[in-house]
Formats: sequence, structure tokens, C-alpha cells
Amino acid sequence: MAGNSFGQIFRLTTFGESHGPGVGAVIDGCPAGLEIDLEFIQKQLDKRRPGQSRLSSARNENDRLQILSGVFKGKSTGSPLAIFIANEDARTKDYEHLSEIFRPSHADFSMFKKFGHRDYRGGGRSSARETTARVAAGAVAQLLLKKSGIQISAFVSQVENVICKKSYDQLNLKKIFDSEIRCPDQSTAKKMIKLIEKVKAEGDSVGGVISCVIKDCPAGLGEPVFDRLHADLGKSMLSINAAKGFDIGSGFAGATMRGGTHNDEFILRGKRVKTKTNFSGGIQ
Amino acid sequence: MAGNSFGQIFRLTTFGESHGPGVGAVIDGCPAGLEIDLEFIQKQLDKRRPGQSRLSSARNENDRLQILSGVFKGKSTGSPLAIFIANEDARTKDYEHLSEIFRPSHADFSMFKKFGHRDYRGGGRSSARETTARVAAGAVAQLLLKKSGIQISAFVSQVENVICKKSYDQLNLKKIFDSEIRCPDQSTAKKMIKLIEKVKAEGDSVGGVISCVIKDCPAGLGEPVFDRLHADLGKSMLSINAAKGFDIGSGFAGATMRGGTHNDEFILRGKRVKTKTNFSGGIQ
Amino acid sequence: MAGNSFGQIFRLTTFGESHGPGVGAVIDGCPAGLEIDLEFIQKQLDKRRPGQSRLSSARNENDRLQILSGVFKGKSTGSPLAIFIANEDARTKDYEHLSEIFRPSHADFSMFKKFGHRDYRGGGRSSARETTARVAAGAVAQLLLKKSGIQISAFVSQVENVICKKSYDQLNLKKIFDSEIRCPDQSTAKKMIKLIEKVKAEGDSVGGVISCVIKDCPAGLGEPVFDRLHADLGKSMLSINAAKGFDIGSGFAGATMRGGTHNDEFILRGKRVKTKTNFSGGIQ
Amino acid sequence: MAGNSFGQIFRLTTFGESHGPGVGAVIDGCPAGLEIDLEFIQKQLDKRRPGQSRLSSARNENDRLQILSGVFKGKSTGSPLAIFIANEDARTKDYEHLSEIFRPSHADFSMFKKFGHRDYRGGGRSSARETTARVAAGAVAQLLLKKSGIQISAFVSQVENVICKKSYDQLNLKKIFDSEIRCPDQSTAKKMIKLIEKVKAEGDSVGGVISCVIKDCPAGLGEPVFDRLHADLGKSMLSINAAKGFDIGSGFAGATMRGGTHNDEFILRGKRVKTKTNFSGGIQ
Repeated sequence: MAGNSFGQIFRLTTFGESHGPGVGAVIDGCPAGLEIDLEFIQKQLDKRRPGQSRLSSARNENDRLQILSGVFKGKSTGSPLAIFIANEDARTKDYEHLSEIFRPSHADFSMFKKFGHRDYRGGGRSSARETTARVAAGAVAQLLLKKSGIQISAFVSQVENVICKKSYDQLNLKKIFDSEIRCPDQSTAKKMIKLIEKVKAEGDSVGGVISCVIKDCPAGLGEPVFDRLHADLGKSMLSINAAKGFDIGSGFAGATMRGGTHNDEFILRGKRVKTKTNFSGGIQ
Repeated sequence: MAGNSFGQIFRLTTFGESHGPGVGAVIDGCPAGLEIDLEFIQKQLDKRRPGQSRLSSARNENDRLQILSGVFKGKSTGSPLAIFIANEDARTKDYEHLSEIFRPSHADFSMFKKFGHRDYRGGGRSSARETTARVAAGAVAQLLLKKSGIQISAFVSQVENVICKKSYDQLNLKKIFDSEIRCPDQSTAKKMIKLIEKVKAEGDSVGGVISCVIKDCPAGLGEPVFDRLHADLGKSMLSINAAKGFDIGSGFAGATMRGGTHNDEFILRGKRVKTKTNFSGGIQ
Repeated sequence: MAGNSFGQIFRLTTFGESHGPGVGAVIDGCPAGLEIDLEFIQKQLDKRRPGQSRLSSARNENDRLQILSGVFKGKSTGSPLAIFIANEDARTKDYEHLSEIFRPSHADFSMFKKFGHRDYRGGGRSSARETTARVAAGAVAQLLLKKSGIQISAFVSQVENVICKKSYDQLNLKKIFDSEIRCPDQSTAKKMIKLIEKVKAEGDSVGGVISCVIKDCPAGLGEPVFDRLHADLGKSMLSINAAKGFDIGSGFAGATMRGGTHNDEFILRGKRVKTKTNFSGGIQ
Repeated sequence: MAGNSFGQIFRLTTFGESHGPGVGAVIDGCPAGLEIDLEFIQKQLDKRRPGQSRLSSARNENDRLQILSGVFKGKSTGSPLAIFIANEDARTKDYEHLSEIFRPSHADFSMFKKFGHRDYRGGGRSSARETTARVAAGAVAQLLLKKSGIQISAFVSQVENVICKKSYDQLNLKKIFDSEIRCPDQSTAKKMIKLIEKVKAEGDSVGGVISCVIKDCPAGLGEPVFDRLHADLGKSMLSINAAKGFDIGSGFAGATMRGGTHNDEFILRGKRVKTKTNFSGGIQ
């Protein structure tokens, strides 16, 4: 069955494997007339690209984006916007030794059971390389959201036991990309980097938490009851390789709170209705 | 936009409000020939029903299910299976005092911003009463899953700081309904109940965590990449009122683990491939 | 698989069988604040109801509509709008003799092959009674379209070889319901009625063509390329029992036309761009 | 809104414009393990290609297909199968004179009203070049259907008033491609060709009818009530540029038939249930 699309109005379909010709994204429903800033999209792809720092994996790709359709004279046309990113560093040979074993905690075994065959070249479709297409499409979405004044930032807030304890409104989100670990709190960032270097030297890897802050999002997005905004956000995040959890607002910490404290009191700030606290995660 | 359906093959659409004529579920795609055990469905509805113990809210409903379509001579016909549960205790008057205020941490304000009007009768569509339709449809799904040998159990594993520390394979999941708090570990259950009684006496409420165990699920369910099984599970759980987080396998605890420990080693148990640990949450 | 829904934004799901408790419609995506004129909806149901004239089949139903959800104080709430119409004249016994035979040119055999069982009570789900739910939902849609000034009329334009030869702009569409056959051209209507009475006396039935005229529809509805407006219209019409064809504009007659004649020349009428002819069927 | 996908289980999304980099198709849901016969797909593309005979338009394209994803070692992997066909003869200059006028009976005007801009290069997305992607995907579908023994043939059955009067079971469907007009009845084919040559000499074009025959299709495909097989077939055919009508079985001719004649009587041929006539169009 089809499972490679996400969204209803701005609908993303991705394709491509780790070691095939490349990966691609088709956005169906992008409004016409949007300026498609290729440099901006390329910059987002560059941020995703592994092999950039000593902290991540070694694969080396240029990830140059190509527009296959949907753009005319620099603007979206309303037709499907297709983006393709060729694989250059597709050393299938590197994986030949895997053609007969299943790597633990990879999707190798599940894919084999489901489809009855193996694409042993770096995980094929289940490789994290698939996220390249998401980043490209996400960058187009960001161009659109910018026009509505909606700001989205994401940063590393935890690496193993090194936790960024400042809350999102105490952080300068413009400083996220100042450190290569992408934590806006510089002293925490340093500790995180030190830890990763140590773990890497030991030949191991380590988990972490990403925090995302969405600002100036208008009220009323999402649809009750199944397509609630945070349910769709959760689904999209959980569909990323290796993601094992998602929470919003108070999240799992909310389990230890009382209703009287957890309720977000309404207040007026100028003419806008706000809440004093934000345990609901802004969905209220 | 439409947002009240969930699923593709076995597709559920729900309708109904807290204080309208009732709530309903339409299941489109239920295979023909399934024995529709009304008693079993009613029993599941009874478990959901509030007002059963001193621990939950006071509303009193009988929640008698009616089949509106899709069943002939006790079996599903393959046509949409519609279930309706009439509201009996719809005391709209109780809520008249709310017609001009918004309750904190309820969807009242969001719904008003979205739809431009108020259904102040107990939250209308955003009331937790909507889950009645989910339970009815879930019970039908369970009848179907039973035939494939898939077992699903859910229990309360945490209430504020009272945590059930035994892992799922150390618990007797048949004892879940032995305590009114629905925690299979009897000593933890007692502590939970004591805590809730105390909090309730103080006029407050308290958060918690539900754990769900799915056994004997065949490999290969769900679709890469967006419709992964755990992503869809996450979406459905996050779409329940007041749910603020979802995790699977190691979950957020996985953030503090090293790759070397987190990888689930493959082992052979008899002729079946298993994993030694289950940090992936069984999706491997 | 699920196949009982139609539409994306204003999404209709229907349920119910010929001889079960009744038939129903759930509209998901009806905008909030629409005045739900129950009398208007009932009137449309009454028009559909068989047993009204000597020309149609004999089943006698009152078809009283009930609103199950989505309406509060006479207006739509934005939540799913569910309508139920109970079956009153469900004489299952009348069909007991059919439990072991398949009626020719009915869906009996296909349904049996597909679902592996028989609902022999008047066709069950495949009975034309299912259209009751469509009419109810269509009436709600009409309430919505009226607000945008869009007018939709449908009339009988052919019965066997009796054909209404006037084109839609020569007919007074307000006179459709003046004759029981629902053809606005009175002399043609009389011939049609006479023919049907004759055929009925011979114990037979006869085919025909329905024409539909949509006026003041704004440009730009529908989506290229698969979800073109006329493709969706075609699908919905072809999904009605016994419909064997659909055409638009010049339709099949267009096959005998030359491009030079078929092209609809643009003209200006006041400040509006129009076309001189309408062989495209208004989709241009 | 998104409108460039078709199908649920085997889901096709197309992209690309007449004069952009090319056109493409993403098939999501193609089962794994299907042998992807590139030569066969290319042959279908070649059949669609204009500029092949003196009867059609002059554009010259090689239409060489490229597989972008979903195939490994000659077989489908179960991941999205993406096909791209580059535009080579994209002479945008040819269309510069159109940048300020709307061609009659083209989608130019509708697209402008809908999207607020013009892609004047040969119709952009609304060009018939878009069908290239459909043909590529259709060829993959055919590879799949062949394995189930389902045969699909389509031929030209009418050009203006030249009509192939033999019914489908009197024709040798293997001879369709013997004439360049693709009508299996050779004497009719000759008349059609003569007519088109005459009309072309007059600088005009002419309409026609395509007939499609599907053989050995198993019973029970399609879903009641909205997603009936013939309703989906109708939608897909009506979504092709310039298609103005669709009928099945007796079609519009059925309007002039009596019920007693139209009913398809069940007969036994060997052990298979068949019908004597086929006015239902095989959906019975």
C-alpha cells in the first residue's frame, strides 16, 4: 500500500533510495506565485548533509538540488513542484558484505519480511538519506510559512545526560547554528560536543532530544478530532528514522503535575488573548 | 476541512457531541463475515464509562450501543458498520453558566477561534465523550485482531510520582481490571488509588501515563516512510484529549543510552527470529 | 477497503442498507455557521421518495430525517453533521424468496463474489435506497452553494426515444417540477408520461437521460490533473445505481465535430469574459 | 489543493510540464518483486509519442525513460517507483507569441483564473504532454495486471461519422496496431485515415471515440458505493485532456432500451457463471 505521502492540502510525496540514482520530493498543492528561493533551499540541504563536522557520519554528498517541475520564472506555478537530489557517493560495493546479514536495530529485517527481498545498499529506502527529500520540501514549506510570519526553530536540547535546562523563551534561537552541535546555549553546547567526541572515540554513538519552537502560529489550525495539529506533528516526527518519542507542552513531565497547576490561565497581553503558562504546548 | 476519519483500509469516521443526540462511529472497510459480538463491544463501552468508581468524573450514562448498519444475522456484511450511542445525561443547563466564559486548558477557545461560534454544552465535539465512538470502533477492531491472534493490553503505569517499575514482561496483564485504577501490579495500584483519593479531596486532579503492550503482531505492518506503524499509533494516541506525549520502545529514556547498548541483538528462539532486548519497541 | 466516502474538503460518508434500521450520511467539513434549513432538506428527500406517483416503484417510506450531530441552535457547528433516515417499510419477508437466487442486472452476484455472503433483503447496501443519504447530504451542499449564488438544476431530458430537443438555455428550469416526470418542456413531458404508462402496462421498464445545468459557478474549481471538476462529477454520477454513461458539453456528439467548430470563441459580455458557444461544457 | 494523484493501493502521482525539464510519475504501492521490463514500458511510450505518423501533431520527442527509484536488480523493491522523461523538444520560443493571448478551448484561461499567472509554454501542466507520465505508469500497471491474466486493449472505434460497427467480440484485438489509426477493423481503419487526411488538408481537426475492452477481470474489484470500479474508470478517463464523455456497457444507447431486454441473463458456461448479454458492461 501507498505510504510515502504526507499532508492533504500541501501534500508531500517522496521517493528514492540510499544507493539508487537519487532522492526526490513532489509537493502537490504548493500555491502558485511563491518565490522559490533556490539558495535558501540549498542552504537547508547543506545543514542536513552529513560529513560536515567531526561529530557526524562520514558519507560525502554534495546534495545539489535540481528542480524538475512546478517552477517558472523563479515562481511556483501551482503545478506539482518536483525536486531531485542525485546520489553521488553511492558506493554500493561498501555494502556488499551486508547482502547476507541483517544489521541490528536497522529496518533491514522488517523490510525483508515485508517485501520479500533485500536492498542491502545502505538500507535502501529505509536509510536516513530519505530525509534529504523531507528537508528540501520542508524548505519550500518554510518559504511559504515565512510569508505568514510563522517562525520555526529546532535545536538539540539533550545529548545523553547533558541537558539544556533553559526554557525556550530564555534562549536566543538565532544562535542555534553558532555551534556545530546546534544548541543555542553555548556552555551546554560545549559539554555536548565534548561528550560526543568521547563516545565517538570509544567507537559508540549516543542518543539525544531535539526541541522545536513554533512562534506566531495562528489559532485554529488542524482539525478535530483525529487530525489535530499536534497529532499530525507527532506522526511526522515519529516517522523519522530512529525517533522513539514525541511530546508537546508539559509532555511526559505533565504526568507528575496536578490539574490546578497544569491549567493554562488566560491573560490579556495588550489586545491579544494569551495564557500565563504554556503547559498545553500552545495548542490551546 | 474533514478531520474526523482515521485509517485507510479499516477506516473510522466518528461524529457526535457531548450534549447533542449522541455519538457515533462509522467503520468503512470492516471485512464481511466477522461475528459482531455485541456483548463484547458493550463491555468495552462499559469500561470506558465514567461514573463507575469514586476515582473518576460523575457523569452518568448508560452508553447502550445501537447498530445502525452493516450487520446482518450477527455478522458484518462488508458495508459500513455504523454504531450509535445516544446521550442520556445531556444536562445542557449545567453548562449555561459557561456560555460566556472559556474554561482554561480546554479546547473552548481554540474551537471558538476556528469555527466562530461556541457549543458551550460540555465542550461539544471536543468533549472526551467523543472517545465513546472510538471505544466502540476499537472493540470491533479487537474482534478482528483476535482472529489473527494479536493481543492488545493497556494499563495505568504511572500516576504523578507513583510509578509501576516492573517491565511489561514481568506483569500479569490479565490482572489489569482487578483494580479499579487498572494497574496490574496490585501494590502499585493501591498507592495510585490512595494518591488520587487524596488529590480529589483537595479538589484537584492529577496526570499519569498509560502503557500499551501489543503481542504477536506479525512483522511488516505499516508502510514506510510516512505511514510507519508507530507513527500512526502515535498520531492516534496524540489525538486523544489531554494526551501530551507518546513514546515507543526505549522512548525518551533512549536519549540517555549509547548505540552499543540500544541496538537490539537478533537471536533465534526455536525457529523464530527474535531480539534479545526490545529498545526499538518491537517495530524491528 | 473503504469506498463509502466522497470528497476531500466537504467529505461525505454514507452508511445503511435497504432493509436494515435505516440509512445515514456523515458530512465532515461542512463549514460552521451555515443555517441548516431542515424543511428544505426534507423537501429534497420527499422529491426522491418512490411511491409518489404512478410512474415509479411502490415502496412506501416517510423518509423523516433526524439530525444526529453537528447542528446547534439551527446552525452547523463545523463538527461532523450526521443525518439518519430510518427505514419504516423494511419488509424483509418480501425478499425471503430471493435468498437463493440472484436477480439479473442487480449487484446481488457481484456482492456475493466480493463479500462471500448475501444480504438478500432488497439488495442491502446496493439498493437504490442508498441514494437517500446522498440526497440528504446533497441538500446540505445546496444550502452552502446557494450562499455562493451557484444554481444547480437537473431534469429528465430523454425517455427511450422521446427526447427533449430544446437546449438548456431555451428551457425554463423553474418548471421542472411542474410535471411528475420532471421535464420542464411540457409537451415533451406529456409524451414521456404516456410512454412510461404504456411500458408499465406491458410489465416492463425503460431507460432515460438526466441533464444537469450548473449556473454561476466560479472559474478555477477542481484541480488538475486527476481531480478535474468534470472528472469528479463524472465519478459521482457513475457511482449511482444503473448509471451507464456521463458526458459534458458537446459530449459524445463532439466526436462528430471538427475542431474549428468545437472551439469555444472567447467574447466579452459587459466586463465578463464569456464564450460564444459552450462545447467544453463550461469548464473552460 | 493537491489533485495530481490517482488511486489508493497502487497510487500514481504525476508531475511535469510541457516545456519544463520533463515529466515524471511516482508510483507508490507497486508490489515488490515485479520484473520491471524497461523495453516494454519504452514501447508503450513510443506508441503515445506524437510526430510518428502524418496523422498527428508534429512535436518531436524521443521520450527516453529514466528510472529514478524503486527498482533494484531489474525488480521493483516496494519503494516508490519514480520514472522521469526529459523534455528535449521544449522550444519555449515557439510559444512567446502566446504570452498575451488565450487559446480557445484550451485550459489557458482557467489556469490563469485559478493560479493567477500564465505558463504560456505550450499549456504548461495542462498540455497533453502530461499523459506521458500516465502512459509510463500505465505500462507498469500492465506488467502487474498481466501476471493476473487481465488483458486490456483500446482502439479507435469512431472518427467523426466513420464508425466501427463490429462489436468487441467480433474484432481481432491483436490487429489494433496493424493500422496507424489503431482500429482493428481494416476497412474501417482505411476510411478513418482517409477522412483525417482530408480534414487535415483543410487545416482542421476532428473528434472520435476510443473503445476499451478488459478481459478476464476477476469479480469483486472496486468498492461500493462511491468507489465503484466503473466510476473510478470514468473519472480517470474524463481526466484526460479533451475527453468529453464516458460510458460503459450499453452506455447512452441503454437509454433507449427496455428493462426486459437490458437485463443480462445469467448462464453457465462450463463451470463459470456468465451472462448471455453484457449491457451492464461486465460489472455485474
